[in-house]
Amino acid sequence: MPQLRLALAQVNTVVGDIDGNAELCLQAARDASGAGAHLLVLPELALTGYPIEDLALRKSFQTASRAALAALPRQLADAGLGDLAVVVGYLDASPDAPPQTGRPAGLPRNSAALLLGGEVLARYDKHHLPNYGVFDEARYFVPGLDLQVVRLHGVDVAIAVCEDLWQDGGPVAATREAGAGLLVVPNASPYERNKDDGRLELVRRRAAEAGCVLAYVNTVGGQDELVFDGDSLVVAPDGEVLARAPQFDDALLVVDLDLPAATAEPRDEDSSLTAANGGRVRIRRTVASSEPLPAYDPQPASVAERVPDEQEVWSALVVGLRDYVRKNRFRSVILGLSGGIDSAVVAALAVDALGADNVHGVSLPSVYSSEHSKDDAADLAERTGLHYSTVAIAPMVAAYLGEVELTGLAEENLQARVRGTTLMGLSNQHGHLVLATGNKSELAVGYSTLYGDAVGGYAPIKDVPKTWVWAIARWRNADAEARGETPPIPPNSIDKEPSAELRPDQRDTDSLPPYDLLDDLLDDYVEQDRGSAELVALGFDPALVERVIRMVDAAEYKRRQYPPGPKISARNFGRDRRLPITSRWREPAPGASHDTPVPAKTSPAGERGGTA
Amino acid sequence: MPQLRLALAQVNTVVGDIDGNAELCLQAARDASGAGAHLLVLPELALTGYPIEDLALRKSFQTASRAALAALPRQLADAGLGDLAVVVGYLDASPDAPPQTGRPAGLPRNSAALLLGGEVLARYDKHHLPNYGVFDEARYFVPGLDLQVVRLHGVDVAIAVCEDLWQDGGPVAATREAGAGLLVVPNASPYERNKDDGRLELVRRRAAEAGCVLAYVNTVGGQDELVFDGDSLVVAPDGEVLARAPQFDDALLVVDLDLPAATAEPRDEDSSLTAANGGRVRIRRTVASSEPLPAYDPQPASVAERVPDEQEVWSALVVGLRDYVRKNRFRSVILGLSGGIDSAVVAALAVDALGADNVHGVSLPSVYSSEHSKDDAADLAERTGLHYSTVAIAPMVAAYLGEVELTGLAEENLQARVRGTTLMGLSNQHGHLVLATGNKSELAVGYSTLYGDAVGGYAPIKDVPKTWVWAIARWRNADAEARGETPPIPPNSIDKEPSAELRPDQRDTDSLPPYDLLDDLLDDYVEQDRGSAELVALGFDPALVERVIRMVDAAEYKRRQYPPGPKISARNFGRDRRLPITSRWREPAPGASHDTPVPAKTSPAGERGGTA
Repeated sequence: MPQLRLALAQVNTVVGDIDGNAELCLQAARDASGAGAHLLVLPELALTGYPIEDLALRKSFQTASRAALAALPRQLADAGLGDLAVVVGYLDASPDAPPQTGRPAGLPRNSAALLLGGEVLARYDKHHLPNYGVFDEARYFVPGLDLQVVRLHGVDVAIAVCEDLWQDGGPVAATREAGAGLLVVPNASPYERNKDDGRLELVRRRAAEAGCVLAYVNTVGGQDELVFDGDSLVVAPDGEVLARAPQFDDALLVVDLDLPAATAEPRDEDSSLTAANGGRVRIRRTVASSEPLPAYDPQPASVAERVPDEQEVWSALVVGLRDYVRKNRFRSVILGLSGGIDSAVVAALAVDALGADNVHGVSLPSVYSSEHSKDDAADLAERTGLHYSTVAIAPMVAAYLGEVELTGLAEENLQARVRGTTLMGLSNQHGHLVLATGNKSELAVGYSTLYGDAVGGYAPIKDVPKTWVWAIARWRNADAEARGETPPIPPNSIDKEPSAELRPDQRDTDSLPPYDLLDDLLDDYVEQDRGSAELVALGFDPALVERVIRMVDAAEYKRRQYPPGPKISARNFGRDRRLPITSRWREPAPGASHDTPVPAKTSPAGERGGTA
Repeated sequence: MPQLRLALAQVNTVVGDIDGNAELCLQAARDASGAGAHLLVLPELALTGYPIEDLALRKSFQTASRAALAALPRQLADAGLGDLAVVVGYLDASPDAPPQTGRPAGLPRNSAALLLGGEVLARYDKHHLPNYGVFDEARYFVPGLDLQVVRLHGVDVAIAVCEDLWQDGGPVAATREAGAGLLVVPNASPYERNKDDGRLELVRRRAAEAGCVLAYVNTVGGQDELVFDGDSLVVAPDGEVLARAPQFDDALLVVDLDLPAATAEPRDEDSSLTAANGGRVRIRRTVASSEPLPAYDPQPASVAERVPDEQEVWSALVVGLRDYVRKNRFRSVILGLSGGIDSAVVAALAVDALGADNVHGVSLPSVYSSEHSKDDAADLAERTGLHYSTVAIAPMVAAYLGEVELTGLAEENLQARVRGTTLMGLSNQHGHLVLATGNKSELAVGYSTLYGDAVGGYAPIKDVPKTWVWAIARWRNADAEARGETPPIPPNSIDKEPSAELRPDQRDTDSLPPYDLLDDLLDDYVEQDRGSAELVALGFDPALVERVIRMVDAAEYKRRQYPPGPKISARNFGRDRRLPITSRWREPAPGASHDTPVPAKTSPAGERGGTA
């Protein structure tokens, strides 16, 4: 059987930085060539970054992507890498195609090209354009209609892109009809908790369907609200994992393969599969080299081990935070330290991402702040080594109260807003990015203050439920202890009862159900999108279901105004859950007593939810 | 020729309020019946409101829409309206259909039904699903494949929905093949400046293509960032406007028509047109009544006159504001009055929308505020009759500066944030919705303070360029004078030079080009999406092009955090311009000198743009 040394490069691209991304691709080619690889595969849209959103529609951007792709084969050849076949994702377009109503003018395409010997040898356009969750590809791209097969060193190599793998029929099935010996798939597939398990299962199933080895290469790193985890994979048609890259790290995964020799006549033909235009998927063949390579000694490939869920989540949050700060050209961050678990975890994440010297924690005590809050914040600063300072907010609060009458909820929110204004002032003065410290449970029910604790450029734990904030804090401390280091998070911040400390003896449970119960219910309502009848059937108390649903639905405006943060679950409160601000829809409330007090819809006003 | 009295109801639905919307439909049917109509057509998705976004995917919501549609024929019949044929838009679904990857589970449909005699007589599913600009329908719906033709009083009536009209081929062409005598089209088509001209032209062209009278009925009223202007139309195949409803008002447009008698065999058949699945559009026929009505005396129909552009924009803003406040269950608004043109126009809009008694203006002078600013704000209050109060911000600013060192830009932003915090406090205390007063030119270049002037629930002029803010102010004053009323906007607020007054003798032109030049350039860059090379070719100074583009691109984060506001142009900064926060893309800068100072990307920090 012909041999082939395959390299998969999981690289950390930056949206819009076409020159920088091209250099990342060239460096991966140098590394792959140095490792003796014959074929290098880079991720989906590696030249432009992902997701490019409406940049895809900008003519100057399309032109720049096409120009970078056209220049790359010569740059590879000039670097002595002309013999290495390189598959790379880029934004293509048909600039002279007439505009189609409902389709972007200029018809952009989500494409991959195979480069060899100083030339673009073959092109492939993605067929299946995901348009759900965080994806909007039907807005940007026209679908491809062909399967591209390139004969390389006597092996027929087929190309597909990302979503093509998640759909039945189409390119994967056409790969089997084409008799390909290897299917390579560039991806930009965002991290979700437990997705790596589903991904392996999917790749195994598709390798079996394609009847050949499947090589899956994924982007790595944070980009706005998405975090890509890499986890590139090579799987045999019988399901054996031949190689696997680590999550959340740049990597070049190299694997030696024995592959079936190509036998098909090298001519184009129609498959039996239906394409997006209702016609047949066309199989197009290109011959680079029909002769197998001279035999060589294969090297063992690495198969990265899986890590515990808590470590996976912690790593995703660190990488998301690091890259958001770096890619937006900030160097340092600032956040308020309350002594509570949320700000402690965000501070520890920031120290892991940026180093303690780039993290500024500010204690902002009010007259309602307890002694233990101030002590716990100071303890955190000592454990992590971050810069620590204290600004008392009582004088500012008193100044407002001297000019305007604010009582009750308005006074509670005032304290949060004085803190927000102070942090933003320090941000403007010193150039730090402000981190918001709210968790997903709070955001879900609107338990936060607009322009108060909700200020900032990035919200590292906005997609982490409260019970998981505790879980990853415990994991991080235990991991430090196991390595003989100081656990970064004060145990008292983990163990004490949560309080916003905006009035005397306040407790979160004054306004909210216990967090373990709340998170269970939110998981079913938000993540699983179950209606109230289903929730009651699952055993939740009808009055609680009604109360929590009303809080969640009324908080839509606050969630929209919250800073972006890294997505770690199937549904966060950013791009993948799109509800109207103004909606009078009320879930039916089976079995709820009619005297359950229900707050009026107050989302645009900025109340701390649940107490309105 | 058979006669038919047609009624088009432009109603103001509320997203999610299925019961309330059904009652609006019933009331329109009572009115239409009272006017002697035989056929009533209601807007697209009238039972659910538009746009419903991810609510479309919620099973309980689909169920509720289908149940409301199923109940409506009986409710009509019980009200003695069983003889009136009613076409109404609603959300349908195929709950038992298997989920398709990349398509929502349960397969929702954007549908219209014809109700008659206590029954649902026919159904139609929208074919063309717009997925550009503010539309995301490919995310929510599966396309229809059939054209529905109902024989009513001897006339073949075809149904299409909204985007079906904007696309070549498909249902309109099938209508001609079907030999229909009338095409009725429910719409939810948002207002844009000058769109009414394009709409009339489009309807004329499609009436000619369909070869029959075309009746276009549109939603009216504000919903989140969209404003629907009504402007329902009936056009003959020769282009004659037979009837036209006013913009921005609820209306029942009634018109008597002489229509060709139906002659086709009433059986289903394939058309020659291609449907979304690659097959043929199927023409389905239903017979309600083959006999023409007894002859009656037709009544003249009304054709509403067009209004000046400035009045059209003013009306759109008033309706958008009124409905946002009302549909979110607020009754009153609060805003800061600086004496400048932006806050004066927003206050006048609010008074027109809600009445002076529901508008609260607060002067928030600082040590840098000029006497004329305070006088102009007081003059505005007197002219409009709104509630007026003053809160000096100096004590709060001094309290912050006593605790933290904030200078330069950080001190300027502090003043804006103290104002924002004060307004939010008053909002929480009294339940007013806060209005943000920024205009589109400022937002484009980031000339605002995050959590300062950018606080609020709604931003009435965020899509109005500064030069247009002046234009509508002048129109509103002139219109008042023509009616013998007091012009609401102080002439001095219109005529004086713009200043943020955050430091001594500050002028907007310290940081920005003159507004007429800036607005010209922004129109070409943002609205027309022209690249830098095109802008320079149009005659703009290369250095100015580079400077403005850098400011616009760097302000993406601020724009995202800005409150929603009514869309009045082809591209606002909300749903219809979707760019990444983190992007290193830089437009090529042809001819710009290399020593042009370019600000670093600082979007997430909250600077007042252009001075960073």
